[in-house]
Amino acid sequence: MIHSLLKNKKIILASASPRRREIFNLLGIKALQEPAAIAETIFTQNPRKLVKTHARNKAKEVARKYGSECLVVGSDTIVYHRGKILFKPKDKYEAADFLCRLSNDYHYVYTGIAICYKNKVFTTYEKTKVEFKHLTAEEIEEYIKTGEPMDKAGAYGIQGYGSQFIRKLNGCYFNVMGFPITKFYELLKEIL
Amino acid sequence: MIHSLLKNKKIILASASPRRREIFNLLGIKALQEPAAIAETIFTQNPRKLVKTHARNKAKEVARKYGSECLVVGSDTIVYHRGKILFKPKDKYEAADFLCRLSNDYHYVYTGIAICYKNKVFTTYEKTKVEFKHLTAEEIEEYIKTGEPMDKAGAYGIQGYGSQFIRKLNGCYFNVMGFPITKFYELLKEIL
Repeated sequence: MIHSLLKNKKIILASASPRRREIFNLLGIKALQEPAAIAETIFTQNPRKLVKTHARNKAKEVARKYGSECLVVGSDTIVYHRGKILFKPKDKYEAADFLCRLSNDYHYVYTGIAICYKNKVFTTYEKTKVEFKHLTAEEIEEYIKTGEPMDKAGAYGIQGYGSQFIRKLNGCYFNVMGFPITKFYELLKEIL
Repeated sequence: MIHSLLKNKKIILASASPRRREIFNLLGIKALQEPAAIAETIFTQNPRKLVKTHARNKAKEVARKYGSECLVVGSDTIVYHRGKILFKPKDKYEAADFLCRLSNDYHYVYTGIAICYKNKVFTTYEKTKVEFKHLTAEEIEEYIKTGEPMDKAGAYGIQGYGSQFIRKLNGCYFNVMGFPITKFYELLKEIL
């Protein structure tokens, strides 16, 4: 299991996300959390490429400060809806726009993972299909008032109030939360 | 949204489950938690019937103690694997047996919900398909040592160490955690 694979390793989580912190906690992983100071640029409309590159940049940026024996984990999550990449909303108007788009439709959540270890970088990604129920204008307004959408890709959180908007999920739940656990486990087994 | 539908209502959660408590918290539902003292008998091998009846019995048992203006929520979750219903394991040997069965195969999680309100009972249920990766004997042993399987139907928890065993999920994640949020929301809208 993950916690025994990582026993006696120094782990750095190169992310500011409280959701990723929470996932590490539930897996029993003791990690230092150090966000990478990386600007996330949209250099491609290919979601898979984008999240893997962002994850890699984050992990590499943080790994430079630590020894090569440290295992540094970078990660990036985006929402992909009908050819458009949705990041964190800039303001509540963009949040409302995102939620309107997602309403009564399906979208994909992509997360890239990168691990820096012994001067090498290993990457993988996960893709999960999510279906939203129809959202009324009232629900969108109410949801934005909770403050939950603002720091989340696609303007919703699956592990909070946003949970009640999801009709169906196909794939990895934790990917939608921001960190695909099973893919991480597979990658670790390859590396260690 | 759920928290505004339930505003000014007195809610009783007729369940001892800390997972259900957690789900109520993340939805912003203020509820009293009062477990029902009901023996869960296997009177049928039909999983849908079973979870709905158990949920109904739990909700009715607790509702008797409260006024009819209270909204009492009962719930029951089971794992259904190749025609066999898996409850909470009796001991660590049964937990190992359950995990062996689930390894490298799919199963279904069923949760029944019952709401007692104004002397009526309303029920619904949710079904989610879950696929496990192959578990090694070591992983099963290690997992049982964490103590996590013992109080959970099918001997695993999706929101803990067990998360790393799941290859794929099709349907509602929160159903697997023990309480299908979207179905609950739909039922509430019908009732209120």
